Parts: sequence; structure tokens; C-alpha cells
Amino acid sequence: MLNKLTSSDIAFFQGLLGTNAFLDAENKHKYSHDETEDITILPEIVLKPQSPQEIASILSYCNNHKIAVTPSGARTGLSGGAIPLHGGVALSLEKFNKIISIDENNHQVTVEPGVITQVLQDAVKEKGLFYPPDPASRGSCFIGGNIAENSGGPKAVKYGVTSDYVLNLEVVLATGEIIWTGANVLKNATGYNLTQLIVGSEGTLGIVTKIVLKLIPHPTHNLLMLVPFYNAESACEAVAEIFKAGITPSGLEFMERDALTWTRDFLKDDSIVIGDNHAAHLLIEVDGFNPDVLMDDCTRIMDVLSNFETDEILFAESEAQKDALWRLRRSVGEAVKSNSIYKEEDTVVPRYTLPQLLHHVKRIGEKYGFNSVCYGHAGDGNLHINIIKGDLTDDVWENELPVAIRELFTQVVKLGGTLSGEHGIGLVQKPYMDIAFDEKGLSLMKSIKNVFDPNGILNPGKVI
Amino acid sequence: MLNKLTSSDIAFFQGLLGTNAFLDAENKHKYSHDETEDITILPEIVLKPQSPQEIASILSYCNNHKIAVTPSGARTGLSGGAIPLHGGVALSLEKFNKIISIDENNHQVTVEPGVITQVLQDAVKEKGLFYPPDPASRGSCFIGGNIAENSGGPKAVKYGVTSDYVLNLEVVLATGEIIWTGANVLKNATGYNLTQLIVGSEGTLGIVTKIVLKLIPHPTHNLLMLVPFYNAESACEAVAEIFKAGITPSGLEFMERDALTWTRDFLKDDSIVIGDNHAAHLLIEVDGFNPDVLMDDCTRIMDVLSNFETDEILFAESEAQKDALWRLRRSVGEAVKSNSIYKEEDTVVPRYTLPQLLHHVKRIGEKYGFNSVCYGHAGDGNLHINIIKGDLTDDVWENELPVAIRELFTQVVKLGGTLSGEHGIGLVQKPYMDIAFDEKGLSLMKSIKNVFDPNGILNPGKVI
Repeated sequence: MLNKLTSSDIAFFQGLLGTNAFLDAENKHKYSHDETEDITILPEIVLKPQSPQEIASILSYCNNHKIAVTPSGARTGLSGGAIPLHGGVALSLEKFNKIISIDENNHQVTVEPGVITQVLQDAVKEKGLFYPPDPASRGSCFIGGNIAENSGGPKAVKYGVTSDYVLNLEVVLATGEIIWTGANVLKNATGYNLTQLIVGSEGTLGIVTKIVLKLIPHPTHNLLMLVPFYNAESACEAVAEIFKAGITPSGLEFMERDALTWTRDFLKDDSIVIGDNHAAHLLIEVDGFNPDVLMDDCTRIMDVLSNFETDEILFAESEAQKDALWRLRRSVGEAVKSNSIYKEEDTVVPRYTLPQLLHHVKRIGEKYGFNSVCYGHAGDGNLHINIIKGDLTDDVWENELPVAIRELFTQVVKLGGTLSGEHGIGLVQKPYMDIAFDEKGLSLMKSIKNVFDPNGILNPGKVI
Repeated sequence: MLNKLTSSDIAFFQGLLGTNAFLDAENKHKYSHDETEDITILPEIVLKPQSPQEIASILSYCNNHKIAVTPSGARTGLSGGAIPLHGGVALSLEKFNKIISIDENNHQVTVEPGVITQVLQDAVKEKGLFYPPDPASRGSCFIGGNIAENSGGPKAVKYGVTSDYVLNLEVVLATGEIIWTGANVLKNATGYNLTQLIVGSEGTLGIVTKIVLKLIPHPTHNLLMLVPFYNAESACEAVAEIFKAGITPSGLEFMERDALTWTRDFLKDDSIVIGDNHAAHLLIEVDGFNPDVLMDDCTRIMDVLSNFETDEILFAESEAQKDALWRLRRSVGEAVKSNSIYKEEDTVVPRYTLPQLLHHVKRIGEKYGFNSVCYGHAGDGNLHINIIKGDLTDDVWENELPVAIRELFTQVVKLGGTLSGEHGIGLVQKPYMDIAFDEKGLSLMKSIKNVFDPNGILNPGKVI
């Protein structure tokens, strides 16, 4: 139903944007993929508008001419959200790169979507303020992409995910109107929650052009420990026990043996001793404003861990050692990627059921003959499962693996969980949406999509 | 477009529910109003179903026969959400009164909508767990009503509002299907956020029949202080300064002089000394797990307050004194109600702009000749403005006041705020929705309503 670009379409975009409309192979290739596996689909044109009004003109035109528009941030996504499945326009938000204002009086920041998340975090930290959501890609991803995917990261376990910080959004709709979804307030009972409908909608309902975020005081102290376990399921069991003891760590990460050894080799960082009998590690951080309280938290965590069989616990003794440990954790994804073709699932379950989830992953792996490397934000039940292609044939990879993944997601949903905790559905998880939602739920989502985007031009083929 | 009940409709409901279908005057009167001003509209029948399936049958029938259905909780609402504007069915959720399970392993609770909020809070507190949202009516309101209105309360300033705790909802749709909106997980990037679309939708999109809530460890200690100010705007200024000092109180309430004196008289509680020159009070609570940290927080708050002209600060010395202070605060609404006919606005603004908001309230009051009593959750910028009828004529009250309120809300929106922080729009704020949203935003909301409820049977005439 969507149309290929004609020469008059191209002339329109060039007339509107001048040199910010790109037809060259380099740009087309750059916007043909994100960090999702090895999928590449070329757009027909790359547009880099500079104002909401320019985006409104683009969308209005594309809506009238039924041309696909795929919004594109820093292309660090892991579910294929930025891949221009239907060709058409790749709409880059990279020129929306301003922090508009940091409101120290109200602990809020207004920012454009093309600002790199870490740049935003650093800017507000200078004022003593904290924007906690910190995906592994925070050094390169855009805050707009975080909104689109409802990104999480290690801090989510204590501080929540992106959606918990979004107060208000300026959005260009498919039909070219520009709206604000809410107000710049901490609580809001005024009509339907359009803000949270846009967060996590992966660019299928509108293009976000301004973002108002809540900030909190930046914690001044933290402590970090790395705990080796002889048994991976036992490490998962310890996770829920820590919370049951009344402690809320600011990071509680799980890494299976291979996740850590591959990353150590990938980074050529042998500062961490990984024993032959270490099956998994927990990386545990506590943060706050009072060092004594944090020491007390650590003591209580040690008490919990004393009920499990662990090897010697490493306490980070310097900021450099903390950075090195976090660098290891943040690099797991890249390390796995450099090692083999893989598929990443972003499962999330109630955290007490993590040992069961891990058990199912390995059981289903054995049944279908694949290996997996598991790691992730165990504190909020979010396990990244990297399925390794290794020696599997293309036939098995393409035809049997989807059956195995379906079986896995079915177990996840039985445990009270769902398909994605923070990566989104995009392209690659879309075939499994019927496991998470029944027909009526999906039909509601399709109808909502139709309300916002009646011609289906916005990021077509994604989510639903 | 909606139909009055026929004898065959009544026969259907009686056949379906037997003695749980009520036609008597007492029940009709009971379900004709909530706590909103003095509005009373009788339903044609009151139904008290006992299962989601019974609700599905009722909605399916009403959808086919175009009969209005107004969901009804404990009828403590302040925006008229439970008033059966179009007659038809008043659908009481009072028989959905079970706490289904408290999941200590995952810090979650599954509960039916007709459970009283405080009963839920007490039940999870026995397990050391905390459900923070606590509207003033928590001793009588239903958790389902809290979901419908996205209720807040004094703890919201530190712990967030109802929506921050809702993980998953079972909802009966207008067409009789039953869906779950999400999953029982702490983070979710799986499709559109149907859960947060239902929260705060005031019974216009579906009937919530099961609720999965996140819980957190219950704080073990708190400190409470009452601070008298000689100037009300100055009290409002102190609010933002406390946060700017990096402190996050667990309660930060503002009460204008009349709010406190009227409540003291209403409760016949003269334990609080209110000086002749006290213009307003702040009630400030800090909570946590470590008494030393709380003492330190209080010292830092005192440091901030030393920059303002305050009278002697009262520290609550016992649990009884804390209870008495909170009882005063929680009773302000009732006290005002007992004093005069009034209209309550639930304005919310970025907290630093509170002094400006208060200034506008008084300025507009002078212009239109009304008095107001202001109080509320200043920490999150949520000011309840009770406009007092006093000696105003009915003509002024009915014809001039809406003009004044429109002027007030226009200022609120200019300050970055919106119409309602926690009471909802319901019936009484609906005429002002065009101030908070432009035509396109409202038209999106109407279209979403139409997706969920094509015949407009669910709580007709509310919100939009």
C-alpha cells in the first residue's frame, strides 16, 4: 500500500530541506541498519530535518503520498526499530541535538531527541542532578531512541526506566500536527495518558521532537562488588533474596561464565580472575548519600550471600576499578557479537522466577541444539539471552530457531513475564507478539496505531 | 443516543444477577453521587456483580442495547467520576473485595478493585511491604477508584502516584472481552502501554477487575514537623528550596491558615497552637530505614528554613502526635465541606512556580469576589484550591465562577501545569479540558475512547 519514491517526491524533499536531503550511497547505507543482528535494508532517501515544522512538512507530505517514514536516532537499537523495512524515507533526528534548558528550580530538563544519553547525564550531573536510565550504549545512543524503546539499563532496578522520567513530549503526528502530550508536572490526572502511550511506541505513533524529563538529586557515593558463584541458578536465586532482605541495590547484574570470559578476552582485560569453577557472577552496586548506610547495606548483602556457595567477593577499591567492572558489564553485548552470529532475546520475568527461566533456556537449548550466553539486569528480572549460531546450519538457524524461541517466550509468559524488558519489539520480536497478547489486545493496539497514523506511514512493519 | 432501561432490560439483569440487581430507592440514592460538591443523579438500576464474567455479560448486553454503565467504587471521588450522568446502570465493584495474593518473593500484590486502599496497605505492611499511594480518603476509598483516577496523596512526593505501582491489569472491555494489559514485570517494552492508558481513564475505557501492584520495603522510621510561616507565598517558596538542597521528604504539605483553623475547629482538636500571625504551615515528613540519616535530613531542612521567617517549629514527639498532625491534614477537605458550599480545583504546577500560582489564585479571587482556602501536596506542586461560596449569590456562583476558574486554569497551564494532579477530570473539570489540550490532542483522546468503547456506554459524559 505504501509507494516508492518518485522523482517529484525527491524534488519536494530537496526543495524543503536543501542539502539536508541525502541520496548518496554512504548515507543510505548508514541508515540501512541498527545494531540488530546483521539486517540491512536501504532507505530511498535520508532526511535530516532541523525543526519540528520541517518534520511536520515531511510527514504531511508522506501521509498524503503514502510514503514510508522510518525515524532514526543513533541506530544502536537491538530490535530493528530503525531499519527502513519499506524503504522510503529514513528520518534522522541527529540535528535535534540541543539540551534546551536545565531547570534547577524544578529538577527538570527539556531536551531534543538527538542528544546522546550520556551527554545529557553529564550535563545535569554538573548541576548535582541525576537522570538515571543508562542503557549499555549510553555513550552513543540518543535520548529520543531511549524514549522510543523505553530503555532501561543497570540503574533501572532502583531508579526505574525511561518512562518513569518522562513528564511531557512534543510530538509531530503522522498527519503533520504538532502536539504536547501532557504537562511539566510530577503528577497528572488530566485525560488519557498520551505521554506514556508515546513512550515505548518505537516511532510508530509520532515523532518526538522535545522531551521534558524529571531529574533527581545525584547520589554522592556508591559501592560495588563482584560475586562469583559456582552455580548459575544459585546466583539467580540470590537475587530475589537480596530484595527480600529489604535492600534495594542500585545495580544487580547477572553474568554467566561465558559472558564474562568472552568480554574479558574481547577487552583484553585480565584484571578479573575468573576461576575454573565459576559458573556465574553477580555485580552488585549500592548508592546513596551516606557512606555508612552503604557499608551497612553491603554487610546485609554479605549476610544474604553467606547462605549461598560463593567464591571470594571482590570489592572495588577505587573509581578506576569500578569503571573497569562496569566497562566489562557494558561490553558483554559487543563481545558476544564479535564472537559469533547470534540472536538476542530481552526476556523479563518476576525476579524470583529467574532460576526457572534460566533452567528453561538451557533445557530448550539442549532440545534444539543451541548454546546461549545469558546476562542482564537480574534485579528487575530482565535476562538477555544471546543465542549463539556457532556451528548451527543456516537451515536450523532460520527454520528451527524461531520454533525454539517461541517455546522459550511461551515459558516466559507462563512465568508472568513478557517478550521485552527494554529493547522493544521492533522487527525481530514482532512474530512473537501473539504470545504476550491475545487477539483482542493486539487488535486494540492496531486500532490505536490507526488513530495516530491512519495511512500506516510511520515506521511500518514494526511492533504490531 | 443512549437508551433508558426497559422492563426487558431489567429482567435480563435480574436473570443474570438475581438479588445482586437493585431497584430500590436506597441503593439508587446511594449510587447517585460521590463526594463531589452536591451533585446527585439517580441510576436506573444498581448492579453488584461478583465476577469478571458477570461484568462481561453486563457490558456486552449494555453495548448491544446502548445502555449507559457508570462504574462505581467507594464513591469518594472529587471530580464526579462515579455520578451516573446518563442514568442507566450503576455498576458497583464492591463485591470485588479480595486481596488475591501477596507475593513476598517478588514484592507484588494481586488485588481486586473493591478492596479499601488502607486495608491493602495494612495487609502488605504485615509482610514488611509498602504500597505508598495514600489519598486522604484511604480509609474508605477503593484501590480500583485509585487506579481510575490515578490517585496521589502525601507520599507521592517521594514515592510517586498510583500509576507508578501498577504493573498489570485485568480489564473487561465495553464489548465484553476480558484482557490483561501487560505482564507482572518491573520493566516492559512490549507493545503499546495499555496499562498506563487504563490507569487514570476514569472508567471510560474498561472496567478493571484485577490489579497487579509493585510493592517496596516498608520504611521503618519517620520524623514529622509542622512549620508556621508568617507569609503564605514564602511558605510556598521554601518548598522548592528544600528539594534544591538535595532532600526528598516523604511528605511536604502546605496548609493556608483557614485550612488549619477550620480543621482544628471541625475536629475540635486544639492541641495545635495557631498564632494570630501564622499565614500558612508546612507539614514536613522524612522517612527511611536509618534514624541518624533522618535526623540529618531534618537538620538540613532546618538550615533551609532558617532563610525564611518562620515561627517555632513543632516536632512530633510521639506516634500519637504524628497521627494527630496527619489527621488534621487529612481532614481539611471534610472541614471545608462542612463549612460552606465550595468548589475544589486540583491544580498542579512545577513546584517552583507555587508562589506564583498562589498569587494568581488570590488575585483572581479578588477580581471575582470569592474567597479560597488553599492546601495540598506542595512538594509535587499539587495545590488544592477550595473556592468558598460563602455569601456569593447563586447567579454569581453558577455564571461568573466558571469564568474565574477558566482564568485560573489558563494561568496554571501558562506556568507549565495542568488541571488535575490526582482527582481526575470526571464531570466537573471536563468543561476546561480545552485549556490543557488543543483540539488535536482532544481529538486523539476521543478516537482512543471510540476504539475501546465504540457505542460510548462506559461512564458517558466524563473526561472528554
